[in-house]
Amino acid sequence: MNTPLLSNYVSGQWQAGTGAGTVLRDPVLGTELVRVDATGLHIPAAFRFARQQGSGALQALTYAERAALLAQCQKVLQANRDAYYDIALANSGTVKNDSAVDIDGGLFTLGQYARWGEALGGARALRDGDAVKLGKEPVFQSQHLRTPRPGLALFINAFNFPAWGLWEKAAPALLSGMAVVVKPATATAWLTQRMVQDVVEAGILPPGALSVICGSSAGLLDALQPFDVLSFTGSAETAAVIRSHSAVTRHGVRTNIEADSLNSALLLPDAAPGSPAFDLLVREVVKEMTVKSGQKCTAIRRIFVPEPVFGAAAEAISARLAKVSVGNPRNEGVRMGSLVSREQLDNVQQGLRQLAGAAAVLYDGRGQPLVDADPAIAACQQPVLLGTMNADTAQAVHDVEVFGPVATLVTYRNVEHAHQLVQRGLGSLAVSLYGDDAAALARSTLALAPFHGRLHVVTPEAAQAHTGHGNVMPMSLHGGPGRAGGGEELGGLRALDFYHQRSAVQASPAVLDALGL
Amino acid sequence: MNTPLLSNYVSGQWQAGTGAGTVLRDPVLGTELVRVDATGLHIPAAFRFARQQGSGALQALTYAERAALLAQCQKVLQANRDAYYDIALANSGTVKNDSAVDIDGGLFTLGQYARWGEALGGARALRDGDAVKLGKEPVFQSQHLRTPRPGLALFINAFNFPAWGLWEKAAPALLSGMAVVVKPATATAWLTQRMVQDVVEAGILPPGALSVICGSSAGLLDALQPFDVLSFTGSAETAAVIRSHSAVTRHGVRTNIEADSLNSALLLPDAAPGSPAFDLLVREVVKEMTVKSGQKCTAIRRIFVPEPVFGAAAEAISARLAKVSVGNPRNEGVRMGSLVSREQLDNVQQGLRQLAGAAAVLYDGRGQPLVDADPAIAACQQPVLLGTMNADTAQAVHDVEVFGPVATLVTYRNVEHAHQLVQRGLGSLAVSLYGDDAAALARSTLALAPFHGRLHVVTPEAAQAHTGHGNVMPMSLHGGPGRAGGGEELGGLRALDFYHQRSAVQASPAVLDALGL
Repeated sequence: MNTPLLSNYVSGQWQAGTGAGTVLRDPVLGTELVRVDATGLHIPAAFRFARQQGSGALQALTYAERAALLAQCQKVLQANRDAYYDIALANSGTVKNDSAVDIDGGLFTLGQYARWGEALGGARALRDGDAVKLGKEPVFQSQHLRTPRPGLALFINAFNFPAWGLWEKAAPALLSGMAVVVKPATATAWLTQRMVQDVVEAGILPPGALSVICGSSAGLLDALQPFDVLSFTGSAETAAVIRSHSAVTRHGVRTNIEADSLNSALLLPDAAPGSPAFDLLVREVVKEMTVKSGQKCTAIRRIFVPEPVFGAAAEAISARLAKVSVGNPRNEGVRMGSLVSREQLDNVQQGLRQLAGAAAVLYDGRGQPLVDADPAIAACQQPVLLGTMNADTAQAVHDVEVFGPVATLVTYRNVEHAHQLVQRGLGSLAVSLYGDDAAALARSTLALAPFHGRLHVVTPEAAQAHTGHGNVMPMSLHGGPGRAGGGEELGGLRALDFYHQRSAVQASPAVLDALGL
Repeated sequence: MNTPLLSNYVSGQWQAGTGAGTVLRDPVLGTELVRVDATGLHIPAAFRFARQQGSGALQALTYAERAALLAQCQKVLQANRDAYYDIALANSGTVKNDSAVDIDGGLFTLGQYARWGEALGGARALRDGDAVKLGKEPVFQSQHLRTPRPGLALFINAFNFPAWGLWEKAAPALLSGMAVVVKPATATAWLTQRMVQDVVEAGILPPGALSVICGSSAGLLDALQPFDVLSFTGSAETAAVIRSHSAVTRHGVRTNIEADSLNSALLLPDAAPGSPAFDLLVREVVKEMTVKSGQKCTAIRRIFVPEPVFGAAAEAISARLAKVSVGNPRNEGVRMGSLVSREQLDNVQQGLRQLAGAAAVLYDGRGQPLVDADPAIAACQQPVLLGTMNADTAQAVHDVEVFGPVATLVTYRNVEHAHQLVQRGLGSLAVSLYGDDAAALARSTLALAPFHGRLHVVTPEAAQAHTGHGNVMPMSLHGGPGRAGGGEELGGLRALDFYHQRSAVQASPAVLDALGL
C-alpha cells in the first residue's frame, strides 16, 4: 500500500483515517492515484467544533467581511489552478475544456458571491421586505428579517463536480456565516480535498469554518442537529435514503436535494431544418452530449423536434457526433475523455440497453476505436444517439437517465403534445427552447416553467451570447421540482435563504429601527 | 346509531363513508354530536379530479379572478357565522371569545388574501426579482418567476383550529391556483366540514377546487404525486411519520410542517415588578395560558424573568389565574371552557406530572370547582402555573409541551443566560419580549431570531396596539425552525411561494418581454 493516503480536515486538524482506505484511480490508465479513509474520526466532536468555532467566528463577522474571506479563498485557488487541472486530468479523465467547467466554474461562482456579499455591507442580518402595519395606526408593525442559522452546513457531493460542487455551495454558506463540512464523492474526492487543503494552509478562514471528510459517509447524518442544514447532490435513490434518515424526519434538519433528471431540448414547430434555430439546437445537443462525457446533471437527455424534422435532426446531430474523437485526454487530438470510472461505464452500458428497448439507435460511436486508450482498461464511452417517433409509449425515454454521452431524439405532433412529453420527465433541472418567435417561445416557457428550475431560451439574436443549456450560472436558480429533487441553489443572493432563518418581528417602529436592518 | 353521519366531498360529489364511523362528542357534556367516516372513498380518483378539474380550472384564471372567489367564499362564511359558533361551542367546548379566535381569525385571514390577491391583477405567473445580465452585453439575461404548481394541496390539520386552520392555508393555496383537499382532525372535523359544505353549496369554486375528507387519513399520502404539496399541523411524532412516507422520500412531495413548540415570554432585566413592561407580561401570560384553554401551538409555555422578579411574577400571575372561572361555556359566568376531549385531558394530566418532576407548582387551579360541569364527564382543566429557579437542570421544562392552560415560570441570571435558556426549546414558533429599552429589545430580538419564526416585542407604547403573543396575523410569518417543524405559512404574499415553482428564465430581452410579467 504505497498509494498516498489523503488526510481529512476536521476539528481544526488534519486527521488521517485509521482504516485501509479506498483507492482512487485514473479512469483512463487504471492506475492507483491516492487513497481516502475516514475511519476513526470523531464526527460528533468535529461537528461541535464546526458549529461553535467555525460558525461562531463567521457569524461574528459582517457579510462584507465574510465576502472578503471568499475573495481571498478565490485568490489562493486561482494561484493553484494548474494543480487542479492535473488532478482532474488524472482522476476524472477529462480534457482541459471539460475540467474548466468544473474548476473555473467553481472559481467564477466563488468570485461572484464575493462581489455580491461585499454589496451587503456591514450588516449581520438581512432585511426581508418592508415593515407593514398590524392595525390602523402605525404604532405596531411587522418586519421580516433573515438571520444566519446557528448550525453547520453538511454537503454530500457528487463525483462529477468535485470543484464547482464544493464552491457553488460553500460560497453562499460561508457568506451566510455557516461553517461547511464537505463529504466529496469518493471516486473524485482528491480535487475537493486538495482545494480545501490549499485554503486551510493559507490560513484565511477561522478554525472550523471549512472541513473535509473523505471516504465513507457513515455517521455523518447521525451527528446532525436541528439547526444544521444538509445539501445533497446525487441519485434519487440516495436522496430517498437521506430524506428517511432520523436527522431529517425527527430533528427536522433542513435539506436541499439536487437529483438527476431527464432534461429536455425543444425545437419549436416553426424552426425548419437549416434555420438558425435548428442549427443552434444541433450544436447545443452535441455540446451537451459530449462535455464531460455527458456527466452533467443538467445535460440534455431528450431532444424534442416536430415529426417532419426527425430525419434532418438525426442526420445533423450524427454528423457532428461522428467528428468527436474519444480517448486519452492527454492526447491533443482527443475531444472527449473518459467517464469517471469503469463502474460508471457499466452503468451507462446498462442504461443504453434499457433505452434501446424503447428507441432505435440512430448514431453509434461505439464502432470507432479509442484514441490512445485501451478499451479493456479505460472508462471511455463513445457517444450514442437514439430516436423514436412513438414517444407516448416509449416510457424508458422519459424515465431512464443514462449518465453519459447519450441522448434520445423524440418527435412531437404539435406544441401541446411537445409540452406533454417534456412533462413526462416529472420535473427536471433545465429545458432549452429553440426558435425565433418570441411570443411562441414565451408561451412554451410559461407552460413548462412549473416543471423546471431553469428554462434556457436560445434565439438567433442570442446565438453568441447564450450561456449554454447545461451551464449553471450563479445568477440563475439551480434545482428542479419533482424527480430533480425539489431543491434550490444559487440564483444570486437567493442562495443565502437556505442558510438563514426567516422570522417576523412584530414591534413598535422604535424597536424596528433599533434592529439596524 | 342515530348520530348523523357527515359526508365527505370529493370528485365534485358528496360521498358518505361506508363504515361505522367515528363519533364526535361534546367535550363538556359528553354527548354524541355527529359521526365521520371515509371508508370506501376512491382517493386516487378524487385526487386526480382535484388536480385536473380543480387546479386546472383555477389556473385558467388570473390572480385577481381567484381573489374574487376568495372574497365570495368569505361572504358566504360570514353569513353562516352563527352556525359555526354553535358548532364550536358544542364540539370544541370553547367560550365565545375563544371560538372567535378560530372562526373570525379564519375569516379575517381569508379576507386579507382576497385583498392582497386582487392587487396581483391579471397575471397568471409572478415575477421574482429583476432581470440580470448573463454577460457583458444585455442580449442574454436571467429573469426569475414563479408559476403555480400543477398538483393539489393536501392539508392534514390539527384539532385546535378547525376553521382558521383551513382558511389560513386554503386562502393562499386557492389564490395560487392549487386545488385544496382538507383532512381535518377527527375530534373537531365538524366545523371544517360545515364550512366546506357552505362554500360548496354556494357554487363559488370550480368543481374539484375544494374537497373535504373526514375520518381516517389512510391512503391519502399514498395518493400524492410529485407536484402535489402537503401541509401538516400537529405533533412532532406524526410529523416524523409523514416525513418518512414514500410520497415525501421517493416522490419529493413538497411538505410544510408546523409542529408544537415550547414558546417563550421574556421579561428583560430592566423591567421591575410594577413597571408597565412587567404588567404587560403578566397580562399576556395569563391570556396565553387561558385562551382556548392553552390549546394554541403558539401559546406561552415558558416565562423567563430575572431572579429577583420571580416572587412578584409568580404572585401577579397567580392572582389573575385565580379569577379565571372554568366550566361549561354555555354559562355566562365561565371564562374558560374545556379542552377538546377527555383524551387531551389525560394528556395534559400526564404532562403536568412530568413537569412537576422538574418544577414546583406555584398556582394550582385544580382545587377550584368547575362551573356548571361534571368533572367526571367534562374535559375541563383549570390553569396551573409551575416555576423553577434552576432552569439549567430542569430539562422537562424545555422539552415537555403540555397542550393546556399550563406554563412554567423560569428565572435567569443575566440576559445571555436568558437567551441560552430560551434556545433550549430547540426552535419555537414565537417568543415575546417585554421591556422599554428599544436597543436592548432589539439586541435580544436579533439573538433569538434564528430560533423563532416570530418575535413579538411588547413595549409600553404598544400596550394597546400589540396583536398578542399567540395571535397569528396573516401579515407575519407563521412557523418556526427545529422542533417547531421548519415550516413557513402566511407572511402576506410570502405564503404563495409554497404553492409555486420558482424558475429562472434565461433568454433575450424580447422573449422576457413576451412573458408579460
